[in-house]
Amino acid sequence: MRAATHEVQIYYEDTDHSGLVYHANYLKYFERAREHLLGVRELVRLGEEGLGFVVYRCEMAFKQGAVFGDTLEIRTTPSLVSEYRLSFRQDVYRGETLLVAGTVEMVILGPEKAPVPIPASVLAHLAR
Amino acid sequence: MRAATHEVQIYYEDTDHSGLVYHANYLKYFERAREHLLGVRELVRLGEEGLGFVVYRCEMAFKQGAVFGDTLEIRTTPSLVSEYRLSFRQDVYRGETLLVAGTVEMVILGPEKAPVPIPASVLAHLAR
Amino acid sequence: MRAATHEVQIYYEDTDHSGLVYHANYLKYFERAREHLLGVRELVRLGEEGLGFVVYRCEMAFKQGAVFGDTLEIRTTPSLVSEYRLSFRQDVYRGETLLVAGTVEMVILGPEKAPVPIPASVLAHLAR
Amino acid sequence: MRAATHEVQIYYEDTDHSGLVYHANYLKYFERAREHLLGVRELVRLGEEGLGFVVYRCEMAFKQGAVFGDTLEIRTTPSLVSEYRLSFRQDVYRGETLLVAGTVEMVILGPEKAPVPIPASVLAHLAR
Repeated sequence: MRAATHEVQIYYEDTDHSGLVYHANYLKYFERAREHLLGVRELVRLGEEGLGFVVYRCEMAFKQGAVFGDTLEIRTTPSLVSEYRLSFRQDVYRGETLLVAGTVEMVILGPEKAPVPIPASVLAHLAR
Repeated sequence: MRAATHEVQIYYEDTDHSGLVYHANYLKYFERAREHLLGVRELVRLGEEGLGFVVYRCEMAFKQGAVFGDTLEIRTTPSLVSEYRLSFRQDVYRGETLLVAGTVEMVILGPEKAPVPIPASVLAHLAR
Repeated sequence: MRAATHEVQIYYEDTDHSGLVYHANYLKYFERAREHLLGVRELVRLGEEGLGFVVYRCEMAFKQGAVFGDTLEIRTTPSLVSEYRLSFRQDVYRGETLLVAGTVEMVILGPEKAPVPIPASVLAHLAR
Repeated sequence: MRAATHEVQIYYEDTDHSGLVYHANYLKYFERAREHLLGVRELVRLGEEGLGFVVYRCEMAFKQGAVFGDTLEIRTTPSLVSEYRLSFRQDVYRGETLLVAGTVEMVILGPEKAPVPIPASVLAHLAR
């Protein structure tokens, strides 16, 4: 599956009074990156079929903080863990410095709120 | 209509790198205070009838900043502006010091996304 | 002073369970737009001199909601209200539809946390 | 070390357009719970000495979603992993149903931004 890079600009809203980016916000940047990778149109289309991605597990290791004015790069590498589960390796870089190393595992819930196999259309998007 | 007071504790998540509470967050505290005033059960019940509050207009004047560890008081005074519109005066105090003076005007949208008269059950809640 | 346009993509994080963008988030988009207009480098430079922008007053009128997947345009027009105060007209458009009309007034606090005249370097940035 | 329970009310701001609580927000609830456990006064005092907690690693497994109007319980159990590292087991319950199981590991950075041994005052707080 193809990897992708998404750029994030750090604004006032992203920081806390320590002067650094608030740790929970990296999960937001990860999600923005995944939405660009999967395509908003595809996500809206899935929603109309009653299908929705949900995070199943996530994990982050923090190496270094980011500050106001930084431009960060989220590097995302998806992989299919099982018929039902996608895993995204998501790392945050400032230049060539790794700030945060993350992993997010997702499933897709159907109209009954039970996991469904990852649809072929999603896999096609990720393979392109 | 009765006034009400809602307490807010300031955490890391509330501040930004200036060291003060991020200005947009006061609108969140205002909403928490309104939800307590209106009652979550009443709001859920309205939702089941296809009715939902939406903010129509809001305004804030900032006098002084709040910092990590502060306990703030949101003082809310509702009033009925017209058959279709509720106005909430919402002020933020730390002790007896006014930090932010706000006003939030709300309407209720029906299933067709058009404003409906404020339901009697809502007025009853606010009159108690 | 020159006007400027800033684009905002609507992600999961921006919406609430009503299906629409959470109202307080528009203040975040306004700030992102102002930061691009003023220039992050200039803002960091001011910070090193002990100067910081703070919001003094703000106001928003909500006309129509935005949803997941929308691309919004924040159109910002600054003006100098007095030696000490900048006002930003900030409107949110989806295509040619006005969703939110806002105004944000700002002052700059000096090292003593008292307002200082708007620095010439800031006015130069806004005049370009 | 003593365990502690912290209650969180779910407001509009906490949810996203899926109707459920946005996944990143649980990290905020975890931090609120830790701040109550450690004591805001102690955290402010540490800050005055140039010491600050930072998240080093975190992990969450999502079992079930929470919705608007829910009252959640964050159950936190701290443990000392090494001289330099505290681990907090943090689980989210609605009644007796486990919604999210989390772990957050923290270190304390000194004035030089290097990890320092966990201060005796912090351990005393957690032992009480």
